[in-house]
Amino acid sequence: MPQEIYLDNSATTRVSKAAAEKALYMMTECYGNPSSLHSKGFAAEREMTAAREILAQRLSAQPNEVYFTSGGTESDNIAILGAAHAKKRAGNRIVTTAIEHPAVLATMAALEKEGFEVVYVEPDADGNIPAAKFEPVIDAKTILVSVMTVNNETGAVLPLKEIAGIIKRKKAPALFHTDAVQAFCKLPLSMKKLGVDLISVSGHKVHAPKGVGALAVRSGVRILPHAFGGGQEKNLRPGTEGVPQICAFGAAVREMPAESDAERTVRAVQTHLIERLRAMPEVTLNSPENAMPYIVNLSAGRVRAETMLHFLAQRGIYVSSGSACGKAKPSHVLTAMGLPRERIESSLRVSLSAENTTEEIDAFADALALGLQTLSHT
Amino acid sequence: MPQEIYLDNSATTRVSKAAAEKALYMMTECYGNPSSLHSKGFAAEREMTAAREILAQRLSAQPNEVYFTSGGTESDNIAILGAAHAKKRAGNRIVTTAIEHPAVLATMAALEKEGFEVVYVEPDADGNIPAAKFEPVIDAKTILVSVMTVNNETGAVLPLKEIAGIIKRKKAPALFHTDAVQAFCKLPLSMKKLGVDLISVSGHKVHAPKGVGALAVRSGVRILPHAFGGGQEKNLRPGTEGVPQICAFGAAVREMPAESDAERTVRAVQTHLIERLRAMPEVTLNSPENAMPYIVNLSAGRVRAETMLHFLAQRGIYVSSGSACGKAKPSHVLTAMGLPRERIESSLRVSLSAENTTEEIDAFADALALGLQTLSHT
Repeated sequence: MPQEIYLDNSATTRVSKAAAEKALYMMTECYGNPSSLHSKGFAAEREMTAAREILAQRLSAQPNEVYFTSGGTESDNIAILGAAHAKKRAGNRIVTTAIEHPAVLATMAALEKEGFEVVYVEPDADGNIPAAKFEPVIDAKTILVSVMTVNNETGAVLPLKEIAGIIKRKKAPALFHTDAVQAFCKLPLSMKKLGVDLISVSGHKVHAPKGVGALAVRSGVRILPHAFGGGQEKNLRPGTEGVPQICAFGAAVREMPAESDAERTVRAVQTHLIERLRAMPEVTLNSPENAMPYIVNLSAGRVRAETMLHFLAQRGIYVSSGSACGKAKPSHVLTAMGLPRERIESSLRVSLSAENTTEEIDAFADALALGLQTLSHT
Repeated sequence: MPQEIYLDNSATTRVSKAAAEKALYMMTECYGNPSSLHSKGFAAEREMTAAREILAQRLSAQPNEVYFTSGGTESDNIAILGAAHAKKRAGNRIVTTAIEHPAVLATMAALEKEGFEVVYVEPDADGNIPAAKFEPVIDAKTILVSVMTVNNETGAVLPLKEIAGIIKRKKAPALFHTDAVQAFCKLPLSMKKLGVDLISVSGHKVHAPKGVGALAVRSGVRILPHAFGGGQEKNLRPGTEGVPQICAFGAAVREMPAESDAERTVRAVQTHLIERLRAMPEVTLNSPENAMPYIVNLSAGRVRAETMLHFLAQRGIYVSSGSACGKAKPSHVLTAMGLPRERIESSLRVSLSAENTTEEIDAFADALALGLQTLSHT
């Protein structure tokens, strides 16, 4: 088998053995409908409850605060549309950032069409957004603040706790949502400690299958559903639950190491990566210095990202150009940071999991150096 | 291992070996993000394209008319909300039936709150709805007609083709949607032949995993999205696709026998079941005579459905009380048919797959007879 060095873990991850086995078991043995009123249904529901408890524990939440969804995008949609519509009478302003994932930005655009005023806070040139930038825009008529925990292209960590403080000081009636898809199992998440009301997470970034996610809704917070059906997930997300994926999600999360342990492992690999990159004069780093170590964004000379991606993939090395969700469009995140077009067009994202090694980083760095040498001359 | 006789296939089915293996392969080997611009992403996208082609073929549609969703409920929501909002300026009336699945009925209730006028056509006492009943309610201001292909509790087949004719004759601007979740791979479905614009189907009723479905949208038909994100599924259903489930859906459908062959097999088993039931004086049949053979609804004397379910489940025999989605509520379908309360409260649904045998039916009928004898005395 040819080598496979997968450094695109922020796009998606390989499903863990335990998660895949759990999914298989739920598909072929414990295959009842959790809504069925017989023992085969109850067995499926028990497994789902176990998964819900695992998710709740990771989010420092209660199981009844965890709602399963079909993924991060659906979690974001439910949270943002649901909060805006529930709080409509308290005001018209929504505050978010210019560097959110398309699942948030596109939903915000839909709310703008409905007549909501959406304020997009811009990042600094290094990719960070200091809390002070939220100070002048959050007001007493702000009904929703949605700020990602970690940016998916640069790894920039957003100051959620401080923003929660501003919401409180301004006496804003706002619900506070965070898209934590890139932070889940990487940074400790707690609604209470962060001061947030709603947290979106996704399975396939943490070695669970694609097509499953969760939304944590702080107890007592009311949001309006925007899909309708048989009452599953307390009416917030109706439809027969994606039981195999949900239970695999639980199995994957249970196996994920504690955030601080994983961070130590990944930090060592990232430090090595940054050293190797700093030794290449054609390479510029785009991630902020204090970014989460799982994501390293860089610009590789004048070689277009697609060309370099292809060169690396031919050698079994997988990274990404910006996010997987933007496809060929130039990155809105790097654009908001004010980077020159050439640097945006040559930008690559290396995204790590706790399974990556310094040997893999060396293979990547060597291939990148070779690519820069080979491709710059064409 | 104790016996397991699964006669609840309209609630959900066991995932087929081929489908489970395909899901496993997509989780652990071909795990790229289909939006990724490298070969690992392309490989996942190719697999998804193959699944789309299989679905399209079964629906006599083009691959670009098939949109993957997270299940039947989401397909219904996208179709109904999307059609109503797209056609808003052409009129205000929506026509549906009183016996639709909650995914349709709850969505209709949401549209009523928005100000749409929704007309619910009632069934006859036998569970059928003759096309003539749609004649007086579909008018030139009707913008959406949503009628299920087969009822999920009784197996009643709805006269879609005739309804399509009425829409045409009345010169209604309506889009025509059908929830075909219970008909898919059981009756031949073709948007062209049935005269429908939108078809919802679900994976887990046809031996694919839970948490995947599809919506067929006739080429040229425009509906508005109600979820927002990274542009997947041509913006109609954004979010990273549930690739393992989608590809398993394809694998399951590819294996499903031709509708007419399966019907022959199931008809033989159903005929045997009906004979056995007719021999029991306490049993009344609730399904119409001309129902699809996959579903047999019956009332078992004065024994409450939950009690009988439990009695049967203890013997490894699984049937359902009404639908799995309504949980403990009394059936809205049998209520609309005007059945007396006692008959509704003792109603059971036996739902078959092509894998069930007459031996299993005998085991069920024997257990039912024993249950009637034992439980009627308590």
